[in-house]
Amino acid sequence: MKFERINKFFNPESLAIIGASRKSWGASNSILNSLIHKKYPGDIYLINARAEKDEKLHGRELYQNIKDCPEVVDLVFIIVPGKYVKSVIQDCIDFGIKNVVIISAGFSESLLYNKEKVKEGRQIVKLARKNDLRFIGPNCNGIINVLGSFYGLFGPRVKIKPGDCSYVSRGGTAIGNILIESALCGFSANKLVNLGDQSDLKVQDFIKYYDGDPTTKVIGVYTEGISDAQSMLEILKDVKKPVIFYKSGRTKAGKRAALSHVGAIAGDDTERIYKGFINQTQIIPVDSIDEMVDVAMALSLAPLPSGNKIGVFTYGGSLGVMMSDAAEKHGLKVAKLNKKQLDALNKMLPEYWSHNNPVDVTDGNNVYQPRNLIKVMKIIIDSFDALFITAPVFENDEIFDINKDEQNFRKMYQELVKMNIKKYRKIIDETNKPIFILGDKGEFSKIFINNNIPVYDSFNSIARSFEALYKYSKILSNKHKKE
Amino acid sequence: MKFERINKFFNPESLAIIGASRKSWGASNSILNSLIHKKYPGDIYLINARAEKDEKLHGRELYQNIKDCPEVVDLVFIIVPGKYVKSVIQDCIDFGIKNVVIISAGFSESLLYNKEKVKEGRQIVKLARKNDLRFIGPNCNGIINVLGSFYGLFGPRVKIKPGDCSYVSRGGTAIGNILIESALCGFSANKLVNLGDQSDLKVQDFIKYYDGDPTTKVIGVYTEGISDAQSMLEILKDVKKPVIFYKSGRTKAGKRAALSHVGAIAGDDTERIYKGFINQTQIIPVDSIDEMVDVAMALSLAPLPSGNKIGVFTYGGSLGVMMSDAAEKHGLKVAKLNKKQLDALNKMLPEYWSHNNPVDVTDGNNVYQPRNLIKVMKIIIDSFDALFITAPVFENDEIFDINKDEQNFRKMYQELVKMNIKKYRKIIDETNKPIFILGDKGEFSKIFINNNIPVYDSFNSIARSFEALYKYSKILSNKHKKE
Repeated sequence: MKFERINKFFNPESLAIIGASRKSWGASNSILNSLIHKKYPGDIYLINARAEKDEKLHGRELYQNIKDCPEVVDLVFIIVPGKYVKSVIQDCIDFGIKNVVIISAGFSESLLYNKEKVKEGRQIVKLARKNDLRFIGPNCNGIINVLGSFYGLFGPRVKIKPGDCSYVSRGGTAIGNILIESALCGFSANKLVNLGDQSDLKVQDFIKYYDGDPTTKVIGVYTEGISDAQSMLEILKDVKKPVIFYKSGRTKAGKRAALSHVGAIAGDDTERIYKGFINQTQIIPVDSIDEMVDVAMALSLAPLPSGNKIGVFTYGGSLGVMMSDAAEKHGLKVAKLNKKQLDALNKMLPEYWSHNNPVDVTDGNNVYQPRNLIKVMKIIIDSFDALFITAPVFENDEIFDINKDEQNFRKMYQELVKMNIKKYRKIIDETNKPIFILGDKGEFSKIFINNNIPVYDSFNSIARSFEALYKYSKILSNKHKKE
Repeated sequence: MKFERINKFFNPESLAIIGASRKSWGASNSILNSLIHKKYPGDIYLINARAEKDEKLHGRELYQNIKDCPEVVDLVFIIVPGKYVKSVIQDCIDFGIKNVVIISAGFSESLLYNKEKVKEGRQIVKLARKNDLRFIGPNCNGIINVLGSFYGLFGPRVKIKPGDCSYVSRGGTAIGNILIESALCGFSANKLVNLGDQSDLKVQDFIKYYDGDPTTKVIGVYTEGISDAQSMLEILKDVKKPVIFYKSGRTKAGKRAALSHVGAIAGDDTERIYKGFINQTQIIPVDSIDEMVDVAMALSLAPLPSGNKIGVFTYGGSLGVMMSDAAEKHGLKVAKLNKKQLDALNKMLPEYWSHNNPVDVTDGNNVYQPRNLIKVMKIIIDSFDALFITAPVFENDEIFDINKDEQNFRKMYQELVKMNIKKYRKIIDETNKPIFILGDKGEFSKIFINNNIPVYDSFNSIARSFEALYKYSKILSNKHKKE
């Protein structure tokens, strides 16, 4: 697939919805509301075969057929019952439409109960290909380009910032969950698409497109089956950007579920193929949507580390123990401090500090001050390839019962962090070493994320995200040595 | 330790804070504010050695010495610099105080930098024991009895409902995190205590106490080292209630961190001992605070299952696939439906449903209605030992950008769930089979939790919590057979 052709899917200057519904709920209204809410800049046309003369919907003219539209739009969403899809595609072809998103279900995923529909699905692909019409779907829930204010999704309308991580998925709820997880921690996204049955355009096409897309830095893939493994392998070997790969349907039960979901044949062979991908390419395998977003944030915001020695700063002993356990379980080294560093810290820290790494200052409110923390970081960073700061601030007023003094302290503390955030960045930029923060999902965390410092809400998330970053860095440097 | 003696720690009729500070921030003010905010019903006395004549603090009289107090209180918090602890303990003994919580640090955890302090810690234990004064700590952050409105914690003041899960910890942040995790999902807690260095009262004492406490149903333990393994083994073998056990400091790095935290010697031997506990007792091992709370919720709210066959209901294909993967990874069986059930579901579900378990109705808004979901549940439950309902509703308005129609729909939907919640309960009560819900942490989830139906926010959490519940049920039934 040519870059420009897929680029048009993400940047349509005008679009139409075939099957625009009069009901206030459902797929077409979800998509239409999202396009409007998210300020899609192009023209939108609505089509319904049962439209009456001069009927309006949401204040817009309602056409009976795409051919009645005043212009040949760049993209068409099809949301009609499965049995009408073929004839609607024919209408699109007749009118000169090139790019289509088929939301309607009932084709290859019908394998278990209606083989006729699988056949019909194949006929539609044949018809489209012959006439140079390309499509996403069927059985998908849409396409999003956050940078382009194009939010064409049947699904949750998430407040998401534009960023540089783009995703392609064969599951619709997976797309929704990626958006939700990213937004919850104040992180961003760029382009997202769900291919559903991927009867025409395939995961491979989008990996290739994202690799060439200048606004994409990190690629995320969610898939249940792997079709055309040879082409997938070739593309994954070629790709220049990091690809986070979540292959679900890996257990027997998961495979059965995948079969009836997107008609994906996720047999034992697929497991063997997937393991081959992991060994032969530079993909980063993950096992949940949470992990996909965690790793995407690390790859998007942090510099690649040159080793796996980590320093831990904490103000609570159990935090240090739990962080150390999680780090070592993920193959990281909680390295020791040298004598010079110990002496320097002894001079500035209260006597009861932990006297090694993790640097635990217990309830050292003074040390916990951002400018003192920065002093500690500068003293210890030489011994490590990365720093983990486990000093969460709690700020969810739904569960915290704080008084006015405490509210003021929190506010002052947030201001202090804001004032000092550039110093954190300076340490990262000067040493080229990543700093990861443990924090709950709130305003405090967002101060860091907005300054490109990743924040995670569990020990395991920090450790596994850094592990992925480190492994990717090793793969790249081995590759570089070979070349 | 006698039941009544520890019971007094959780239910003091009056208390004193020695080391009440004039500063608005720090441990003594955190505890005092929490006691007041959470409406501690008893008398509170404040003591500060440098108090001036007629000085008041927070509107209360400030005494120079515990001996000046108008009454012999049931419990004393000591929050003075480590070097004064011994003499303050002597004052308490002289005055007839029996129960103390030592917040002050600087004793056995000073092992790495000041052996004198370790010695002094031992002297304090000796002195106390000789005079029948028992204490919690030192180096701890407090004690909570939610049912008794007694929130004596130096730490986050969490809005938590009274419930039947009680915890004993050797880490202070662990206690805070248990409260936070429980509150975030709308779950509850009963009693919590952090023992810090546990120089006097030990984890064992509290497990035994909770086992005899009629308001406690589930016991949670967080510990870094295991001291006096023989007595721990005996108590764990004896205990009648489920004990969720989180032993951290299990990796080399974690052990080093534990040593400087609570002076816990978590050597290789401890790992062997811990594995022995798992094999020889009915403890439920977990590896994080999240998991501890997840499992506590399952044990608290759900009936024990008699098998591991689960049915999955979902409205999204990828949800079904990811849930199936997670279930099978945790040793659960995603069992099949029988012909009768398939026929019955074919009659009521749209053609495109998944035609087996997981029961995936895709965007079946009608089926997703609570009363229809209940019909599906009744048809399928015979084939399973438990049902997992993966039909989350999104309601965090900070990240969801929903319009008025959608807000109304959500409201109406919540009302429908509320109206039908008794029917969910009826299925559980009649079949004695657990139902677990996938949901985000919000009002919708709380409807279920308030009706004793557990809700989890990830596939992995559902699967591992049910796995723990199932394993505990097996242990109990094997034990029952033997007896």
